[in-house]
Amino acid sequence: MTGVPEGEGGSVTLDMLKQIMAQFAKERDWERFHSPRNLLLALVGEVGELSEIFQWKGEVPKGLPDWKEEEKVHLGEELSDVLLYLVRLSDMCGVDLGKAALRKVELNAIKYPAAKVCKEMKEDSEIPAAPINNGSGIEGD
Amino acid sequence: MTGVPEGEGGSVTLDMLKQIMAQFAKERDWERFHSPRNLLLALVGEVGELSEIFQWKGEVPKGLPDWKEEEKVHLGEELSDVLLYLVRLSDMCGVDLGKAALRKVELNAIKYPAAKVCKEMKEDSEIPAAPINNGSGIEGD
Amino acid sequence: MTGVPEGEGGSVTLDMLKQIMAQFAKERDWERFHSPRNLLLALVGEVGELSEIFQWKGEVPKGLPDWKEEEKVHLGEELSDVLLYLVRLSDMCGVDLGKAALRKVELNAIKYPAAKVCKEMKEDSEIPAAPINNGSGIEGD
Amino acid sequence: MTGVPEGEGGSVTLDMLKQIMAQFAKERDWERFHSPRNLLLALVGEVGELSEIFQWKGEVPKGLPDWKEEEKVHLGEELSDVLLYLVRLSDMCGVDLGKAALRKVELNAIKYPAAKVCKEMKEDSEIPAAPINNGSGIEGD
Repeated sequence: MTGVPEGEGGSVTLDMLKQIMAQFAKERDWERFHSPRNLLLALVGEVGELSEIFQWKGEVPKGLPDWKEEEKVHLGEELSDVLLYLVRLSDMCGVDLGKAALRKVELNAIKYPAAKVCKEMKEDSEIPAAPINNGSGIEGD
Repeated sequence: MTGVPEGEGGSVTLDMLKQIMAQFAKERDWERFHSPRNLLLALVGEVGELSEIFQWKGEVPKGLPDWKEEEKVHLGEELSDVLLYLVRLSDMCGVDLGKAALRKVELNAIKYPAAKVCKEMKEDSEIPAAPINNGSGIEGD
Repeated sequence: MTGVPEGEGGSVTLDMLKQIMAQFAKERDWERFHSPRNLLLALVGEVGELSEIFQWKGEVPKGLPDWKEEEKVHLGEELSDVLLYLVRLSDMCGVDLGKAALRKVELNAIKYPAAKVCKEMKEDSEIPAAPINNGSGIEGD
Repeated sequence: MTGVPEGEGGSVTLDMLKQIMAQFAKERDWERFHSPRNLLLALVGEVGELSEIFQWKGEVPKGLPDWKEEEKVHLGEELSDVLLYLVRLSDMCGVDLGKAALRKVELNAIKYPAAKVCKEMKEDSEIPAAPINNGSGIEGD
Protein backbone atom coordinates (compact mmCIF):
# COMPACT_ATOMS: atom_id res chain seq x y z
CA MET A 1 0.00 0.00 0.00
CA THR A 2 2.75 2.43 0.90
CA GLY A 3 5.16 1.12 -1.67
CA VAL A 4 7.56 -0.01 1.02
CA PRO A 5 10.23 -2.36 -0.36
CA GLU A 6 10.66 -5.88 0.96
CA GLY A 7 13.67 -7.27 2.77
CA GLU A 8 15.99 -6.29 5.60
CA GLY A 9 16.34 -2.72 6.80
CA GLY A 10 20.04 -2.33 6.05
CA SER A 11 19.50 -0.57 2.76
CA VAL A 12 16.88 1.86 4.04
CA THR A 13 17.96 5.39 3.23
CA LEU A 14 16.89 8.56 5.00
CA ASP A 15 15.68 9.84 1.66
CA MET A 16 13.42 6.84 1.24
CA LEU A 17 11.84 7.49 4.65
CA LYS A 18 11.45 11.18 3.81
CA GLN A 19 9.53 10.33 0.67
CA ILE A 20 7.36 7.78 2.42
CA MET A 21 6.47 10.30 5.12
CA ALA A 22 5.71 13.02 2.58
CA GLN A 23 3.39 10.73 0.64
CA PHE A 24 1.77 9.51 3.84
CA ALA A 25 0.96 13.03 5.00
CA LYS A 26 -0.28 14.08 1.57
CA GLU A 27 -2.66 11.14 1.21
CA ARG A 28 -4.25 11.98 4.59
CA ASP A 29 -4.28 15.75 4.13
CA TRP A 30 -2.05 16.04 7.21
CA GLU A 31 0.44 18.42 5.63
CA ARG A 32 -1.31 21.36 7.27
CA PHE A 33 -0.55 19.93 10.74
CA HIS A 34 3.10 19.26 10.01
CA SER A 35 4.56 22.61 11.01
CA PRO A 36 8.07 22.46 12.49
CA ARG A 37 7.02 23.06 16.10
CA ASN A 38 4.07 20.66 15.88
CA LEU A 39 6.42 17.95 14.66
CA LEU A 40 9.00 18.81 17.29
CA LEU A 41 6.46 18.39 20.08
CA ALA A 42 5.29 15.13 18.50
CA LEU A 43 8.92 14.00 18.52
CA VAL A 44 9.21 14.88 22.22
CA GLY A 45 6.06 12.85 22.82
CA GLU A 46 7.63 9.82 21.17
CA VAL A 47 10.88 10.23 23.11
CA GLY A 48 8.68 10.14 26.21
CA GLU A 49 7.14 6.85 25.12
CA LEU A 50 10.60 5.48 24.42
CA SER A 51 11.71 6.50 27.92
CA GLU A 52 8.70 4.83 29.49
CA ILE A 53 9.92 1.50 28.16
CA PHE A 54 13.17 1.87 30.11
CA GLN A 55 11.94 3.80 33.15
CA TRP A 56 11.55 1.11 35.85
CA LYS A 57 14.19 -1.29 34.60
CA GLY A 58 17.33 -0.04 36.27
CA GLU A 59 20.47 -0.56 34.22
CA VAL A 60 19.90 -2.66 31.12
CA PRO A 61 22.67 -4.70 29.43
CA LYS A 62 23.47 -4.31 25.74
CA GLY A 63 21.41 -6.48 23.44
CA LEU A 64 18.59 -6.66 26.03
CA PRO A 65 19.16 -10.40 26.68
CA ASP A 66 16.31 -10.72 29.20
CA TRP A 67 13.61 -8.90 27.24
CA LYS A 68 10.64 -10.74 25.83
CA GLU A 69 10.18 -10.69 22.07
CA GLU A 70 7.06 -8.52 22.38
CA GLU A 71 8.97 -5.96 24.44
CA LYS A 72 11.62 -5.75 21.76
CA VAL A 73 8.99 -5.32 19.08
CA HIS A 74 7.41 -2.52 21.09
CA LEU A 75 10.83 -0.91 21.53
CA GLY A 76 11.38 -1.06 17.77
CA GLU A 77 8.10 0.75 17.25
CA GLU A 78 8.98 3.58 19.61
CA LEU A 79 12.47 3.96 18.16
CA SER A 80 10.82 4.11 14.74
CA ASP A 81 8.33 6.76 15.80
CA VAL A 82 11.17 8.98 16.95
CA LEU A 83 12.99 8.39 13.67
CA LEU A 84 9.97 9.05 11.47
CA TYR A 85 9.13 12.35 13.17
CA LEU A 86 12.79 13.34 13.05
CA VAL A 87 12.89 12.67 9.31
CA ARG A 88 9.66 14.58 8.77
CA LEU A 89 10.78 17.50 10.96
CA SER A 90 14.04 17.75 9.04
CA ASP A 91 12.15 17.74 5.76
CA MET A 92 9.76 20.47 6.90
CA CYS A 93 12.77 22.55 7.98
CA GLY A 94 14.48 22.10 4.64
CA VAL A 95 17.39 20.20 6.20
CA ASP A 96 19.04 17.32 4.31
CA LEU A 97 19.33 15.04 7.33
CA GLY A 98 21.65 12.47 5.75
CA LYS A 99 24.04 15.14 4.56
CA ALA A 100 23.90 16.91 7.93
CA ALA A 101 24.58 13.65 9.78
CA LEU A 102 27.67 12.88 7.69
CA ARG A 103 28.94 16.41 8.27
CA LYS A 104 28.33 16.10 12.02
CA VAL A 105 30.28 12.86 12.15
CA GLU A 106 33.20 14.63 10.52
CA LEU A 107 32.98 17.48 13.04
CA ASN A 108 32.91 14.97 15.89
CA ALA A 109 35.98 13.23 14.50
CA ILE A 110 37.84 16.55 14.54
CA LYS A 111 36.56 17.47 18.01
CA TYR A 112 37.42 14.09 19.51
CA PRO A 113 40.49 12.75 17.69
CA ALA A 114 40.70 9.01 18.31
CA ALA A 115 44.33 8.96 19.43
CA LYS A 116 44.08 11.96 21.75
CA VAL A 117 40.91 10.76 23.43
CA CYS A 118 42.43 7.35 24.16
CA LYS A 119 45.53 8.95 25.62
CA GLU A 120 43.48 11.19 27.92
CA MET A 121 41.40 8.23 29.01
CA LYS A 122 44.53 6.30 29.92
CA GLU A 123 46.03 9.18 31.89
CA ASP A 124 42.79 9.76 33.73
CA SER A 125 42.18 6.09 34.30
CA GLU A 126 42.01 6.48 38.08
CA ILE A 127 39.39 9.24 37.82
CA PRO A 128 37.23 8.02 34.97
CA ALA A 129 34.21 10.17 35.83
CA ALA A 130 35.80 13.49 34.94
CA PRO A 131 36.52 13.17 31.21
CA ILE A 132 33.51 10.99 30.60
CA ASN A 133 31.03 13.37 32.00
CA ASN A 134 32.29 16.25 29.92
CA GLY A 135 32.05 14.77 26.52
CA SER A 136 32.53 11.10 25.98
CA GLY A 137 29.47 10.87 23.82
CA ILE A 138 29.11 11.59 20.15
CA GLU A 139 29.61 15.24 20.82
CA GLY A 140 30.08 17.67 23.68
CA ASP A 141 27.36 20.30 23.54
CA MET B 1 39.29 9.83 8.48
CA THR B 2 35.96 8.29 9.25
CA GLY B 3 35.51 6.86 5.82
CA VAL B 4 32.45 8.99 5.16
CA PRO B 5 31.44 8.94 1.51
CA GLU B 6 31.26 12.13 -0.54
CA GLY B 7 28.16 13.66 -2.09
CA GLU B 8 24.62 14.51 -1.07
CA GLY B 9 22.88 12.85 1.85
CA GLY B 10 20.08 11.21 -0.13
CA SER B 11 21.78 7.87 -0.33
CA VAL B 12 22.77 7.70 3.31
CA THR B 13 21.48 4.47 4.81
CA LEU B 14 20.76 3.79 8.45
CA ASP B 15 23.14 0.88 8.24
CA MET B 16 25.93 3.15 7.06
CA LEU B 17 25.38 5.43 10.07
CA LYS B 18 25.29 2.43 12.37
CA GLN B 19 28.66 1.26 11.14
CA ILE B 20 30.18 4.73 11.36
CA MET B 21 28.98 5.08 14.95
CA ALA B 22 30.26 1.64 15.90
CA GLN B 23 33.70 2.38 14.47
CA PHE B 24 33.73 5.83 16.09
CA ALA B 25 33.00 4.40 19.53
CA LYS B 26 35.52 1.59 19.12
CA GLU B 27 38.37 3.90 18.10
CA ARG B 28 37.81 6.02 21.22
CA ASP B 29 37.20 3.15 23.60
CA TRP B 30 33.72 4.57 24.27
CA GLU B 31 31.90 1.28 23.87
CA ARG B 32 31.88 0.80 27.64
CA PHE B 33 29.83 4.00 28.05
CA HIS B 34 27.30 3.12 25.37
CA SER B 35 24.80 1.20 27.50
CA PRO B 36 21.16 1.53 26.41
CA ARG B 37 20.11 3.88 29.21
CA ASN B 38 23.22 6.03 28.91
CA LEU B 39 22.50 6.49 25.22
CA LEU B 40 18.83 7.14 25.87
CA LEU B 41 19.64 9.94 28.30
CA ALA B 42 22.15 11.34 25.81
CA LEU B 43 19.37 11.29 23.21
CA VAL B 44 17.09 13.19 25.59
CA GLY B 45 19.86 15.72 26.08
CA GLU B 46 20.08 16.28 22.32
CA VAL B 47 16.31 16.61 21.98
CA GLY B 48 16.61 19.31 24.62
CA GLU B 49 19.19 21.17 22.54
CA LEU B 50 16.96 20.82 19.49
CA SER B 51 14.06 22.29 21.45
CA GLU B 52 16.17 25.22 22.62
CA ILE B 53 16.59 26.29 18.99
CA PHE B 54 12.82 26.65 18.65
CA GLN B 55 11.87 27.72 22.16
CA TRP B 56 11.47 31.51 21.88
CA LYS B 57 10.44 31.69 18.26
CA GLY B 58 6.70 31.30 18.39
CA GLU B 59 5.21 29.49 15.41
CA VAL B 60 7.73 28.89 12.64
CA PRO B 61 6.73 28.47 8.97
CA LYS B 62 7.81 25.45 6.94
CA GLY B 63 11.18 25.82 5.24
CA LEU B 64 12.31 28.36 7.89
CA PRO B 65 12.37 31.23 5.35
CA ASP B 66 13.55 33.87 7.84
CA TRP B 67 16.35 31.89 9.45
CA LYS B 68 19.97 32.85 8.93
CA GLU B 69 22.23 30.28 7.26
CA GLU B 70 24.18 29.75 10.49
CA GLU B 71 20.96 29.02 12.37
CA LYS B 72 20.04 26.38 9.81
CA VAL B 73 23.48 24.82 10.04
CA HIS B 74 23.14 24.69 13.82
CA LEU B 75 19.70 23.11 13.45
CA GLY B 76 21.15 20.47 11.12
CA GLU B 77 23.74 19.64 13.76
CA GLU B 78 21.19 19.14 16.51
CA LEU B 79 18.90 17.07 14.27
CA SER B 80 21.95 14.96 13.45
CA ASP B 81 22.90 14.48 17.08
CA VAL B 82 19.44 13.11 17.79
CA LEU B 83 19.69 10.81 14.77
CA LEU B 84 23.17 9.53 15.62
CA TYR B 85 22.26 8.66 19.20
CA LEU B 86 19.04 7.06 17.99
CA VAL B 87 20.98 4.89 15.55
CA ARG B 88 23.51 3.96 18.22
CA LEU B 89 20.81 3.23 20.81
CA SER B 90 18.99 0.98 18.35
CA ASP B 91 22.21 -0.87 17.60
CA MET B 92 23.01 -1.38 21.29
CA CYS B 93 19.48 -2.74 21.78
CA GLY B 94 19.83 -5.15 18.89
CA VAL B 95 17.06 -3.43 16.92
CA ASP B 96 17.31 -3.16 13.12
CA LEU B 97 16.08 0.44 12.94
CA GLY B 98 15.52 0.54 9.19
CA LYS B 99 13.50 -2.64 9.23
CA ALA B 100 11.52 -1.48 12.26
CA ALA B 101 10.78 1.87 10.61
CA LEU B 102 9.42 0.24 7.45
CA ARG B 103 7.26 -2.06 9.57
CA LYS B 104 5.96 0.90 11.59
CA VAL B 105 5.01 2.74 8.42
CA GLU B 106 2.98 -0.28 7.36
CA LEU B 107 1.25 -0.41 10.75
CA ASN B 108 0.45 3.29 10.50
CA ALA B 109 -1.01 2.82 7.04
CA ILE B 110 -3.34 0.18 8.44
CA LYS B 111 -4.23 2.24 11.51
CA TYR B 112 -4.93 5.38 9.49
CA PRO B 113 -6.26 4.31 6.06
CA ALA B 114 -5.90 7.25 3.71
CA ALA B 115 -9.48 7.22 2.41
CA LYS B 116 -11.10 6.81 5.82
CA VAL B 117 -9.07 9.56 7.44
CA CYS B 118 -9.93 12.02 4.67
CA LYS B 119 -13.61 11.21 4.98
CA GLU B 120 -13.58 11.72 8.75
CA MET B 121 -11.76 14.99 8.32
CA LYS B 122 -14.39 16.20 5.89
CA GLU B 123 -17.26 15.23 8.15
CA ASP B 124 -15.63 16.85 11.13
CA SER B 125 -14.58 19.92 9.19
CA GLU B 126 -16.34 22.27 11.58
CA ILE B 127 -14.63 20.77 14.61
CA PRO B 128 -11.15 20.07 13.31
CA ALA B 129 -9.52 19.98 16.74
CA ALA B 130 -11.18 16.77 17.85
CA PRO B 131 -9.85 14.17 15.41
CA ILE B 132 -6.54 15.94 15.02
CA ASN B 133 -5.73 15.94 18.67
CA ASN B 134 -6.40 12.28 19.02
CA GLY B 135 -4.11 10.96 16.40
CA SER B 136 -3.41 12.90 13.24
CA GLY B 137 0.28 12.30 13.58
CA ILE B 138 2.25 9.39 12.34
CA GLU B 139 0.69 7.24 14.98
CA GLY B 140 -1.63 7.49 17.92
CA ASP B 141 0.04 5.79 20.82
CA MET C 1 -6.38 8.55 52.74
CA THR C 2 -3.19 10.33 51.80
CA GLY C 3 -3.64 13.05 54.34
CA VAL C 4 -3.89 15.73 51.67
CA PRO C 5 -5.18 19.01 53.07
CA GLU C 6 -8.35 20.62 51.78
CA GLY C 7 -8.65 23.93 49.96
CA GLU C 8 -6.89 25.78 47.16
CA GLY C 9 -3.40 24.91 46.00
CA GLY C 10 -1.80 28.26 46.80
CA SER C 11 -0.37 27.12 50.08
CA VAL C 12 1.04 23.85 48.81
CA THR C 13 4.73 23.66 49.66
CA LEU C 14 7.36 21.60 47.90
CA ASP C 15 8.14 20.00 51.22
CA MET C 16 4.54 18.88 51.60
CA LEU C 17 4.66 17.21 48.18
CA LYS C 18 7.99 15.60 49.04
CA GLN C 19 6.51 14.05 52.16
CA ILE C 20 3.37 12.88 50.35
CA MET C 21 5.47 11.22 47.65
CA ALA C 22 7.75 9.57 50.21
CA GLN C 23 4.79 8.14 52.11
CA PHE C 24 3.11 7.06 48.88
CA ALA C 25 6.16 5.12 47.75
CA LYS C 26 6.72 3.57 51.17
CA GLU C 27 3.13 2.33 51.48
CA ARG C 28 3.42 0.57 48.11
CA ASP C 29 6.95 -0.72 48.57
CA TRP C 30 8.01 1.29 45.53
CA GLU C 31 11.07 2.81 47.15
CA ARG C 32 13.27 0.17 45.52
CA PHE C 33 12.22 1.39 42.06
CA HIS C 34 12.81 5.05 42.81
CA SER C 35 16.47 5.29 41.86
CA PRO C 36 17.55 8.64 40.41
CA ARG C 37 17.78 7.48 36.79
CA ASN C 38 14.53 5.50 36.96
CA LEU C 39 12.76 8.63 38.18
CA LEU C 40 14.47 10.79 35.59
CA LEU C 41 13.25 8.57 32.77
CA ALA C 42 9.77 8.56 34.30
CA LEU C 43 9.94 12.37 34.31
CA VAL C 44 10.91 12.36 30.63
CA GLY C 45 7.94 10.10 29.97
CA GLU C 46 5.60 12.58 31.62
CA VAL C 47 7.11 15.51 29.71
CA GLY C 48 6.32 13.50 26.60
CA GLU C 49 2.68 13.16 27.64
CA LEU C 50 2.56 16.88 28.36
CA SER C 51 3.93 17.61 24.90
CA GLU C 52 1.36 15.35 23.28
CA ILE C 53 -1.39 17.62 24.59
CA PHE C 54 0.09 20.55 22.68
CA GLN C 55 1.51 18.78 19.65
CA TRP C 56 -1.10 19.35 16.93
CA LYS C 57 -2.50 22.62 18.16
CA GLY C 58 -0.23 25.18 16.55
CA GLU C 59 0.33 28.29 18.63
CA VAL C 60 -1.88 28.44 21.72
CA PRO C 61 -2.86 31.73 23.42
CA LYS C 62 -2.28 32.31 27.13
CA GLY C 63 -5.05 31.09 29.38
CA LEU C 64 -6.13 28.52 26.79
CA PRO C 65 -9.46 30.32 26.11
CA ASP C 66 -10.70 27.78 23.55
CA TRP C 67 -9.91 24.62 25.48
CA LYS C 68 -12.67 22.44 26.85
CA GLU C 69 -12.81 21.94 30.61
CA GLU C 70 -11.83 18.27 30.26
CA GLU C 71 -8.77 19.22 28.23
CA LYS C 72 -7.69 21.63 30.95
CA VAL C 73 -8.20 18.98 33.61
CA HIS C 74 -6.08 16.57 31.60
CA LEU C 75 -3.42 19.24 31.20
CA GLY C 76 -3.41 19.78 34.98
CA GLU C 77 -2.83 16.08 35.47
CA GLU C 78 0.16 15.96 33.15
CA LEU C 79 1.69 19.11 34.63
CA SER C 80 1.24 17.47 38.04
CA ASP C 81 2.89 14.24 36.97
CA VAL C 82 5.96 16.16 35.87
CA LEU C 83 5.99 18.06 39.18
CA LEU C 84 5.55 14.97 41.33
CA TYR C 85 8.39 13.08 39.65
CA LEU C 86 10.57 16.19 39.82
CA VAL C 87 9.93 16.48 43.56
CA ARG C 88 10.63 12.78 44.08
CA LEU C 89 13.78 12.86 41.93
CA SER C 90 15.10 15.84 43.90
CA ASP C 91 14.42 14.04 47.15
CA MET C 92 16.18 10.87 46.00
CA CYS C 93 19.17 12.99 44.97
CA GLY C 94 19.29 14.73 48.33
CA VAL C 95 18.51 18.11 46.78
CA ASP C 96 16.33 20.61 48.67
CA LEU C 97 14.30 21.69 45.65
CA GLY C 98 12.67 24.74 47.24
CA LYS C 99 15.98 26.07 48.46
CA ALA C 100 17.63 25.37 45.11
CA ALA C 101 14.83 27.13 43.24
CA LEU C 102 15.12 30.27 45.34
CA ARG C 103 18.87 30.27 44.82
CA LYS C 104 18.42 29.84 41.05
CA VAL C 105 16.03 32.78 40.94
CA GLU C 106 18.69 34.91 42.62
CA LEU C 107 21.32 33.76 40.10
CA ASN C 108 18.97 34.57 37.23
CA ALA C 109 18.34 38.04 38.64
CA ILE C 110 22.09 38.66 38.65
CA LYS C 111 22.57 37.18 35.18
CA TYR C 112 19.69 39.16 33.67
CA PRO C 113 19.45 42.49 35.53
CA ALA C 114 16.01 43.94 34.87
CA ALA C 115 17.20 47.37 33.80
CA LYS C 116 19.96 46.14 31.50
CA VAL C 117 17.78 43.59 29.75
CA CYS C 118 15.10 46.18 29.02
CA LYS C 119 17.67 48.55 27.58
CA GLU C 120 19.13 45.86 25.31
CA MET C 121 15.67 44.90 24.15
CA LYS C 122 14.92 48.49 23.23
CA GLU C 123 18.18 48.93 21.32
CA ASP C 124 17.69 45.68 19.46
CA SER C 125 14.05 46.31 18.80
CA GLU C 126 14.48 45.96 15.04
CA ILE C 127 16.20 42.59 15.35
CA PRO C 128 14.21 40.92 18.10
CA ALA C 129 15.35 37.41 17.27
CA ALA C 130 18.95 37.85 18.38
CA PRO C 131 18.63 38.62 22.09
CA ILE C 132 15.53 36.51 22.47
CA ASN C 133 17.06 33.38 21.12
CA ASN C 134 20.11 33.61 23.28
CA GLY C 135 18.54 33.95 26.64
CA SER C 136 15.21 35.63 27.13
CA GLY C 137 13.97 32.79 29.26
CA ILE C 138 14.50 32.14 32.89
CA GLU C 139 18.10 31.38 32.28
CA GLY C 140 20.62 31.25 29.47
CA ASP C 141 22.06 27.81 29.05
CA MET D 1 16.26 42.24 44.65
CA THR D 2 13.64 39.65 43.87
CA GLY D 3 12.11 39.70 47.30
CA VAL D 4 13.05 36.09 47.91
CA PRO D 5 12.64 35.14 51.58
CA GLU D 6 15.56 33.87 53.63
CA GLY D 7 15.92 30.43 55.14
CA GLU D 8 15.51 26.81 54.11
CA GLY D 9 13.40 25.75 51.16
CA GLY D 10 10.91 23.65 53.08
CA SER D 11 8.32 26.40 53.30
CA VAL D 12 8.54 27.41 49.62
CA THR D 13 5.08 27.28 48.10
CA LEU D 14 4.23 26.86 44.44
CA ASP D 15 2.28 30.08 44.67
CA MET D 16 5.35 31.93 45.88
CA LEU D 17 7.35 30.67 42.89
CA LYS D 18 4.52 31.61 40.55
CA GLN D 19 4.54 35.17 41.82
CA ILE D 20 8.33 35.44 41.64
CA MET D 21 8.30 34.21 38.03
CA ALA D 22 5.50 36.60 37.06
CA GLN D 23 7.36 39.56 38.54
CA PHE D 24 10.62 38.45 36.97
CA ALA D 25 9.09 38.28 33.50
CA LYS D 26 7.28 41.59 33.92
CA GLU D 27 10.40 43.48 35.00
CA ARG D 28 12.25 42.27 31.90
CA ASP D 29 9.37 42.67 29.46
CA TRP D 30 9.53 38.93 28.77
CA GLU D 31 5.81 38.33 29.13
CA ARG D 32 5.41 38.49 25.36
CA PHE D 33 7.74 35.48 24.95
CA HIS D 34 6.02 33.38 27.58
CA SER D 35 3.39 31.72 25.44
CA PRO D 36 2.45 28.16 26.48
CA ARG D 37 4.33 26.40 23.68
CA ASN D 38 7.41 28.60 24.03
CA LEU D 39 7.55 27.73 27.72
CA LEU D 40 6.93 24.06 27.02
CA LEU D 41 9.88 23.90 24.63
CA ALA D 42 12.01 25.76 27.16
CA LEU D 43 10.99 23.15 29.72
CA VAL D 44 12.03 20.37 27.34
CA GLY D 45 15.36 22.13 26.91
CA GLU D 46 15.90 22.11 30.67
CA VAL D 47 14.93 18.45 30.96
CA GLY D 48 17.61 17.84 28.35
CA GLU D 49 20.21 19.62 30.47
CA LEU D 50 19.10 17.62 33.50
CA SER D 51 19.52 14.40 31.51
CA GLU D 52 23.01 15.40 30.41
CA ILE D 53 24.11 15.39 34.04
CA PHE D 54 23.17 11.73 34.34
CA GLN D 55 23.89 10.50 30.83
CA TRP D 56 27.32 8.83 31.12
CA LYS D 57 27.11 7.78 34.73
CA GLY D 58 25.44 4.39 34.56
CA GLU D 59 23.22 3.59 37.50
CA VAL D 60 23.48 6.14 40.30
CA PRO D 61 22.69 5.31 43.97
CA LYS D 62 20.21 7.35 45.99
CA GLY D 63 21.68 10.37 47.71
CA LEU D 64 24.49 10.57 45.12
CA PRO D 65 27.18 9.63 47.67
CA ASP D 66 30.08 9.88 45.21
CA TRP D 67 29.19 13.21 43.62
CA LYS D 68 31.30 16.27 44.20
CA GLU D 69 29.66 19.24 45.87
CA GLU D 70 29.84 21.28 42.64
CA GLU D 71 28.07 18.53 40.72
CA LYS D 72 25.27 18.53 43.26
CA VAL D 73 24.97 22.30 43.06
CA HIS D 74 24.77 22.05 39.27
CA LEU D 75 22.12 19.36 39.59
CA GLY D 76 20.11 21.61 41.91
CA GLU D 77 20.22 24.34 39.29
CA GLU D 78 18.91 22.12 36.52
CA LEU D 79 16.17 20.66 38.70
CA SER D 80 15.22 24.23 39.55
CA ASP D 81 15.11 25.33 35.93
CA VAL D 82 12.66 22.55 35.16
CA LEU D 83 10.55 23.54 38.17
CA LEU D 84 10.53 27.24 37.36
CA TYR D 85 9.44 26.72 33.76
CA LEU D 86 6.84 24.22 34.91
CA VAL D 87 5.42 26.75 37.36
CA ARG D 88 5.44 29.48 34.72
CA LEU D 89 3.87 27.21 32.08
CA SER D 90 1.11 26.23 34.50
CA ASP D 91 0.45 29.89 35.27
CA MET D 92 0.28 30.85 31.59
CA CYS D 93 -2.19 27.99 31.04
CA GLY D 94 -4.38 29.11 33.93
CA VAL D 95 -3.71 25.92 35.87
CA ASP D 96 -3.43 26.01 39.68
CA LEU D 97 -0.47 23.65 39.87
CA GLY D 98 -0.59 23.06 43.63
CA LYS D 99 -4.28 22.23 43.53
CA ALA D 100 -3.82 20.01 40.48
CA ALA D 101 -0.94 18.16 42.15
CA LEU D 102 -2.97 17.40 45.29
CA ARG D 103 -5.83 16.19 43.12
CA LYS D 104 -3.48 13.97 41.12
CA VAL D 105 -2.09 12.43 44.29
CA GLU D 106 -5.63 11.53 45.31
CA LEU D 107 -6.30 9.98 41.89
CA ASN D 108 -3.09 7.97 42.14
CA ALA D 109 -4.08 6.73 45.61
CA ILE D 110 -7.35 5.44 44.16
CA LYS D 111 -5.67 3.94 41.10
CA TYR D 112 -2.97 2.20 43.12
CA PRO D 113 -4.45 1.28 46.52
CA ALA D 114 -1.59 0.62 48.93
CA ALA D 115 -2.86 -2.72 50.19
CA LYS D 116 -3.76 -4.11 46.78
CA VAL D 117 -0.47 -3.13 45.18
CA CYS D 118 1.53 -4.77 47.96
CA LYS D 119 -0.47 -7.95 47.63
CA GLU D 120 0.08 -8.10 43.87
CA MET D 121 3.76 -7.46 44.36
CA LYS D 122 4.00 -10.35 46.79
CA GLU D 123 2.14 -12.73 44.49
CA ASP D 124 4.27 -11.70 41.54
CA SER D 125 7.46 -11.73 43.55
CA GLU D 126 9.18 -14.15 41.19
CA ILE D 127 8.41 -12.02 38.14
CA PRO D 128 8.85 -8.50 39.46
CA ALA D 129 9.37 -6.93 36.03
CA ALA D 130 5.80 -7.43 34.85
CA PRO D 131 3.72 -5.36 37.27
CA ILE D 132 6.46 -2.79 37.69
CA ASN D 133 6.75 -2.03 34.06
CA ASN D 134 3.06 -1.42 33.70
CA GLY D 135 2.56 1.13 36.38
CA SER D 136 4.68 1.05 39.47
CA GLY D 137 5.38 4.75 39.23
CA ILE D 138 3.27 7.59 40.42
CA GLU D 139 0.77 6.85 37.73
CA GLY D 140 0.27 4.55 34.80
CA ASP D 141 -0.44 6.58 31.69
